[in-house]
Amino acid sequence: MSAANEFDRICVVLVATRNPLNLGAAARAMSNFGFSDLRVVNPYEVAFREARSAVGAEELLANATEYQSVAAAVADCTLVVGTTAVNHRDLQQTVRTPAQGARLIRRRLAKPADRVALLFGSEKRGLSNPDLDHCHWLMRIPAREPHSSMNLGQAVAVCLYELVRDPQAPISSEKSQYAAAGEAERITTRLFTLLNASGYVNPKTASATEQKVRRLVRRLNLEARDAEVLLGMLRQILWKLGSGETSAR
Amino acid sequence: MSAANEFDRICVVLVATRNPLNLGAAARAMSNFGFSDLRVVNPYEVAFREARSAVGAEELLANATEYQSVAAAVADCTLVVGTTAVNHRDLQQTVRTPAQGARLIRRRLAKPADRVALLFGSEKRGLSNPDLDHCHWLMRIPAREPHSSMNLGQAVAVCLYELVRDPQAPISSEKSQYAAAGEAERITTRLFTLLNASGYVNPKTASATEQKVRRLVRRLNLEARDAEVLLGMLRQILWKLGSGETSAR
Repeated sequence: MSAANEFDRICVVLVATRNPLNLGAAARAMSNFGFSDLRVVNPYEVAFREARSAVGAEELLANATEYQSVAAAVADCTLVVGTTAVNHRDLQQTVRTPAQGARLIRRRLAKPADRVALLFGSEKRGLSNPDLDHCHWLMRIPAREPHSSMNLGQAVAVCLYELVRDPQAPISSEKSQYAAAGEAERITTRLFTLLNASGYVNPKTASATEQKVRRLVRRLNLEARDAEVLLGMLRQILWKLGSGETSAR
Repeated sequence: MSAANEFDRICVVLVATRNPLNLGAAARAMSNFGFSDLRVVNPYEVAFREARSAVGAEELLANATEYQSVAAAVADCTLVVGTTAVNHRDLQQTVRTPAQGARLIRRRLAKPADRVALLFGSEKRGLSNPDLDHCHWLMRIPAREPHSSMNLGQAVAVCLYELVRDPQAPISSEKSQYAAAGEAERITTRLFTLLNASGYVNPKTASATEQKVRRLVRRLNLEARDAEVLLGMLRQILWKLGSGETSAR
């Protein structure tokens, strides 16, 4: 498989970006390193319009797709990787260096059915906790503590550079096919509905519970076939609960 | 020798920079990665003044030293490395990737008497031939041919990142603790009971289904904390089913 094919299956997802210069810089880094799929989630509208119409704007910026939610932007991806500048936040996910992360991403891309999303948050706040819930794991560029927050365009450049850095690096493929993020989200929704119906969810802490379920499902790193089976199981249990019949036990 | 000591002996030399934003971005990347010695050669005067007085300008930008020539700027350095975006120019010097170059630079810095300069040219033309004459060798970030010219701030970020990038340095450990096989088996049993109670299991193929559930649960590679949560969820759903109440949906 050619590198070009591989990198067509990585999308860069910019969430709530404020500065048109950063949108442009991200697009330029993508172009430099041979990436083409740019997606934006709820960008500041003026910034997005300005960046797109800027003289010399990259073609891929003009072709960027806009989404209303992270869930929608990554629905077709089998691996969702978030980026973070933060160390001290109570991160529940595995945090990898770009070197470690790029190795895993390249291994994923060896399989043509896999598609990878690389998420970058807004300049001020980075990715929100609900955004992070959609990520399988996180990548953090090792920066010095007092000034650990990188400029967005530079962070995108460094992460993409790491992916193309060593063209000789062997890509060994993994065995199974992973579930797309859209499938993981369907499981999350269905499981949460079921837990609600079962009285597991305390209405006062419902949104925290939903978040926990979402993260737990991402940690399972589901294969596609297993996601399908789980959805079927959940459907059946929900039907049984809803039917009001006494258990057959 | 500590990393801090090493990096104090690298200076970033920006030659004839035009855009104050790029001066600021270079300074920010230096700050992010723990470098402090910024030198500027013949910057566009207005740009330099603007960048220095910008709100939030890095301290190291305020402390940047200005030189009239490359020769003066690198006079105290024992190794001078130029950066170039260009492949086709009639380069007479060795061109290295950032990975190769960073290795050599770090080796140099192991000796306390050595001091290294990393030169970046102007946004429009890069380093001139007379500038290149001061360099021992060159570094080129591997970029895709039609768009091989990187943004200055991003090029600085990538080169410095390569110097601090240490694949051996673990940032955070892998997933915490995995569930014991006994836990996985408890989940298997409970889930199978639930599926039975829901009418998911065809009695004729029950043992095959149980086997499938067992394998699926093993593929999840559960963390200990997640196994505990899942057991609690299954217990609650089973209770709800067994209680004979109509679902609260």
